[in-house]
Amino acid sequence: MADPTELTALAARIASGGIQVIDLTSPLHADTPILQLPPEFGQTQPFRLEEISRYDDRGPAWYWNNIRTGEHTGTHLDAPNHWVTGRGKEDVASIPPRRLIGPAAVIDKAAEAAKNPDYLLDVPDLEKWQEENGELPDKGWLLFRTGWSARGDDPAAFANADDRGSHTPGVTPEAARYLAGTGLLGFGVETVGTDAGQAPGFTPPFPCHEAVLGAGKYGLTQLRNLDKLPVTGALVIAAPLPIVTGSGSPARVLALVAA
Amino acid sequence: MADPTELTALAARIASGGIQVIDLTSPLHADTPILQLPPEFGQTQPFRLEEISRYDDRGPAWYWNNIRTGEHTGTHLDAPNHWVTGRGKEDVASIPPRRLIGPAAVIDKAAEAAKNPDYLLDVPDLEKWQEENGELPDKGWLLFRTGWSARGDDPAAFANADDRGSHTPGVTPEAARYLAGTGLLGFGVETVGTDAGQAPGFTPPFPCHEAVLGAGKYGLTQLRNLDKLPVTGALVIAAPLPIVTGSGSPARVLALVAA
Repeated sequence: MADPTELTALAARIASGGIQVIDLTSPLHADTPILQLPPEFGQTQPFRLEEISRYDDRGPAWYWNNIRTGEHTGTHLDAPNHWVTGRGKEDVASIPPRRLIGPAAVIDKAAEAAKNPDYLLDVPDLEKWQEENGELPDKGWLLFRTGWSARGDDPAAFANADDRGSHTPGVTPEAARYLAGTGLLGFGVETVGTDAGQAPGFTPPFPCHEAVLGAGKYGLTQLRNLDKLPVTGALVIAAPLPIVTGSGSPARVLALVAA
Repeated sequence: MADPTELTALAARIASGGIQVIDLTSPLHADTPILQLPPEFGQTQPFRLEEISRYDDRGPAWYWNNIRTGEHTGTHLDAPNHWVTGRGKEDVASIPPRRLIGPAAVIDKAAEAAKNPDYLLDVPDLEKWQEENGELPDKGWLLFRTGWSARGDDPAAFANADDRGSHTPGVTPEAARYLAGTGLLGFGVETVGTDAGQAPGFTPPFPCHEAVLGAGKYGLTQLRNLDKLPVTGALVIAAPLPIVTGSGSPARVLALVAA
């Protein structure tokens, strides 16, 4: 039984800065990087605002905009039904609200990704992390720090593409299957998607999507400020829009961290 | 100084149901009610999905959609710059993250609104509430329960319009100015906007927008499940998308409540 005054006390400590609220979300604007698939596939919409009025004859006292975007544009949550292996599992509106808040563990491979943009997180990395920090959090997130968000204001550097495709860090097929077998809520990354840039050529293609979403877990992308989180102990709020039948949604992602 | 293990304990109580996560957000779909202004003004976009692929030749292993919506479509947060009185104040992306989480007070006028759809919350109501429940929460929300969300799946009943316009509950100009002078973060409602359906004809028009946004506070709309909140003691997370220059955003709104 929770103490009802505890939530009031928590609110006061947030207001005073005793608990910090860290914004893990990339800002949304026309240059927010988006996934580019090979041209034979359908593409996600870049973020666009269309002005309705700005204190003018279209609306004398008010300013507002319409929006064009994609479910998977900017920082977003992948629901299980995004992938064929999760077909029939939760859409983004069906995720129980309690599963939108959970503890976070951070695995830091920023130094490795700086040396090798195709760096892949592998099972021994996950085992070593747990030897040092304890089990991965049940009903929580594993957040993969790669430093990639530093490129987030430069779409070309963020995609890091050449004639062989995009070169961005990700996970091995074995690590994807390992994550799918844990009690995690899901896996979060700084890159445009949870799979590596070279993952279209992996066996299977896009192994993180295939395994993690197929296991009914979630993905979180284009996260920022992971360097401001402790290795364990942060509480993450991942707040997608409740799009009925949606395969995912742009999401506001916040972390509570004890100061 | 916060105890770092406290956030881990909070997460465990959320996972176990000792603290409930109540979803205050209306689901987003093509029939989500939207504001209808007189035809001489610009209009907000209804929510629409456009399918990109569904496990087919447009994307063999994945299903996803593009989105058309408005900043003020469905459950959304009004930023101060939405109104001319708040011009130059925060856009929705500039709201400090700590101001997205705060305590909530609920004022219940569902019985009054059932009898009179044009019911207006007035200053004596706010004074009486405080005599009974203490001061309005500093850096928190006042949520106005009217029972209107029960109409949320029927756009005509939600708008409740006749040849004199929409008939939905709201606040008096005096109550709007009173709220603007408090330490609240903002004011949340079950209706399509924070002002009454008849507010275009008030003096001034849209007094809640004018006073509350002009004071640098926020609005929250189309909330549901306010009947599941205690009068005081809930913690509300209002999570808009960080739209750079945006006047507001569709938002996921969650409440933590001690079970």
